Amino acid sequence: MIRVNENYLKLKRGYLFPEIGRRTAAYARQHPEARIIRLGIGDVTLPLPGACVAALREAAGEMGRAETFRGYGPEQGYEFLREAIIENEYRSRGVELEAEEVFVSDGSKCDTGNIQEIFALESKVAICDPVYPVYVDTNVMAGRTGEADEAGRYGGLVYLACTPENHFTPAPPAKPVDLIYLCYPNNPTGAVASRAALARWVEYARENRAIILFDAAYEAYITEGGIPHSIYEIPGAKEVAIEFRSFSKTAGFTGVRCAYTVAPRALKAWSAGGEAVEVNRLWNRRHCTKFNGVSYVVQRAAEAAYSAAGKEEVRRLVGYYLENARVIRERLGKMGYTVHGGVNAPYLWVKTPGGLTSWQFFDKLLAEAQVVGTPGSGFGPAGEGYFRFTAFGERGQIEEAMERMSKMSSGG
Amino acid sequence: MIRVNENYLKLKRGYLFPEIGRRTAAYARQHPEARIIRLGIGDVTLPLPGACVAALREAAGEMGRAETFRGYGPEQGYEFLREAIIENEYRSRGVELEAEEVFVSDGSKCDTGNIQEIFALESKVAICDPVYPVYVDTNVMAGRTGEADEAGRYGGLVYLACTPENHFTPAPPAKPVDLIYLCYPNNPTGAVASRAALARWVEYARENRAIILFDAAYEAYITEGGIPHSIYEIPGAKEVAIEFRSFSKTAGFTGVRCAYTVAPRALKAWSAGGEAVEVNRLWNRRHCTKFNGVSYVVQRAAEAAYSAAGKEEVRRLVGYYLENARVIRERLGKMGYTVHGGVNAPYLWVKTPGGLTSWQFFDKLLAEAQVVGTPGSGFGPAGEGYFRFTAFGERGQIEEAMERMSKMSSGG
Repeated sequence: MIRVNENYLKLKRGYLFPEIGRRTAAYARQHPEARIIRLGIGDVTLPLPGACVAALREAAGEMGRAETFRGYGPEQGYEFLREAIIENEYRSRGVELEAEEVFVSDGSKCDTGNIQEIFALESKVAICDPVYPVYVDTNVMAGRTGEADEAGRYGGLVYLACTPENHFTPAPPAKPVDLIYLCYPNNPTGAVASRAALARWVEYARENRAIILFDAAYEAYITEGGIPHSIYEIPGAKEVAIEFRSFSKTAGFTGVRCAYTVAPRALKAWSAGGEAVEVNRLWNRRHCTKFNGVSYVVQRAAEAAYSAAGKEEVRRLVGYYLENARVIRERLGKMGYTVHGGVNAPYLWVKTPGGLTSWQFFDKLLAEAQVVGTPGSGFGPAGEGYFRFTAFGERGQIEEAMERMSKMSSGG
Repeated sequence: MIRVNENYLKLKRGYLFPEIGRRTAAYARQHPEARIIRLGIGDVTLPLPGACVAALREAAGEMGRAETFRGYGPEQGYEFLREAIIENEYRSRGVELEAEEVFVSDGSKCDTGNIQEIFALESKVAICDPVYPVYVDTNVMAGRTGEADEAGRYGGLVYLACTPENHFTPAPPAKPVDLIYLCYPNNPTGAVASRAALARWVEYARENRAIILFDAAYEAYITEGGIPHSIYEIPGAKEVAIEFRSFSKTAGFTGVRCAYTVAPRALKAWSAGGEAVEVNRLWNRRHCTKFNGVSYVVQRAAEAAYSAAGKEEVRRLVGYYLENARVIRERLGKMGYTVHGGVNAPYLWVKTPGGLTSWQFFDKLLAEAQVVGTPGSGFGPAGEGYFRFTAFGERGQIEEAMERMSKMSSGG
């Protein structure tokens, strides 16, 4: 008799976004005249850079001619894209990588979800709280956790609370862990990790033979100097860290799908017999066995994001969203809200006023301003009492949302 | 200390294609004048249908305009594509499906590799021998097997030998198994499963509460009437089978990347507590947690394969490769080879002459005819003494390869 993977049954229902949708739809039904503004979704809204569109179209033409048609490409990505990534993202910051250390994929969600497969089931996993749910759910599915408690914490995971007191960059735990998921600039808090904070993590990982899974999907939003864009800017990090990057929030590829993962040759994990194994080799085996490469036309579009015109358009896109973030941050600040993030990230992490819970504030915001955001408690227990706004909307909508919020009642 | 997933260390090295590459390169170095013809790779060579190119280009344009830009799409695929698949692939054959039962993905390799995740680790797995290696390797990685023996058989797997005696469609095993991987039309043997053979499997699965993982990536190559194109043509199959399909070998999408998996609502697996769980729901959870949908532009290109012009072009592509298969089959037959497949599949499974092993024949073929094929033993122990040719090449090359082979010596 075929049995299910019981670990799937431990998963809490995908509660957050469906529940937001349910409450928003219910409100819209009762108030058909309401013009609801959505500032909750982490999806870009501006069109694809012209350079990428042109590259897509040209590559499509190539696929239609026998002389230039391409079938299966390398699972790890075409050399032209891996080299462009290394040149533009790493060499320019003093980080040297080889093409074999870069794996092109169809999304950081896939990569951050799949990466845990190559490590032992017994690995002790640390995650931040609040956190991007994919890191947690994929470890639950794999069987690295027990059941969830009332607050939503799964047994066996080490939760690192991210609070204003630690600037949302927790210190390494006292007890050793094996795998650490870090995301900076952070989703959902919008925080960044300083060089000192990252150096402390790298040191911890080296001392404990742990591996850091570093999600840098939002690095392009860093505006302040001195903040590392890559964990490999920290000496010794290549021996303890895998880095995840994406074209989603830079060139607007959420619907086009292209990302990459860096697994340096120097990175090792250990077999039961105590032998060092190259993590790069394991990930390569996984990638080649369960994945067949990113669409050629998409890889050409990603490459075009590094052309002179492409870079300029990416700068403009990121600048637009950052200006949105500035508007939200400034306006909410003036209204008396305590606002974190939004300077080096497209996310704003706002303390709910008057001691409201995250969901209470969600309801109030929807009822009084017809604005939808994301309850912080949906990202983890430590997110309770917080609310996430994203800066990916359209400027006029954001300004109107701020205008409406300025007229909200102050009570709970 | 971070430990590796020990199961990865059980994997035999990706021996087959690298070894083919190594021997071919060595020959080419020693014989720089040789014009080597490759008939071993399962990759298409004809360009993408014009309808798909046009759709790709138009979708690229949409992505470049604010009014028509699309960010994240549904993880399961856009409704327009799911409906087109149902209408053209299933309804036309009398199989009714709902959109929620179809999951669009970036490849059948991914889907057939990932599907095992949603089932219990203790599941007893049956595979054909010879077989597409992904089914085996992904179960090894997951920990469902022991070590491999000398012949390459992993402990714990049930191997179903596919031989001329059983027409390469083995009967269900005497002992119950939980998961059965079947691929028809078959890679590598080119065999098809009759309605009676499939009905027997469906009956077995229903009796044993097993699930059939049915890889139908080559169904478009079926030329003979009466052979099921979908396992759902067998009554009751929706309750016991998942089906995998791809645009790779129909519309030439090996480099464009689009496929789909059908998980019917009626399909159940069981929890430890004996409760029935919808497999569709589990796969949906996996798909939404570890995948972010196929590129919008690619989905539009796939949809275009179902336009009137697209269908005509797909028919032409498939027809070209089938004619290649006919040429190989006829010519090799005249030379005295025993040839299987190639009638309802783009693969030809040839008995090596004179009792040569698969690799001995590889070396002889390379040395005497400068033709490269795939040793059958690379697909499993029961493939020893066989050789796979694919029909995806260019006609002139195939004719020359046949001409050269006709002049080979008959000795070993």
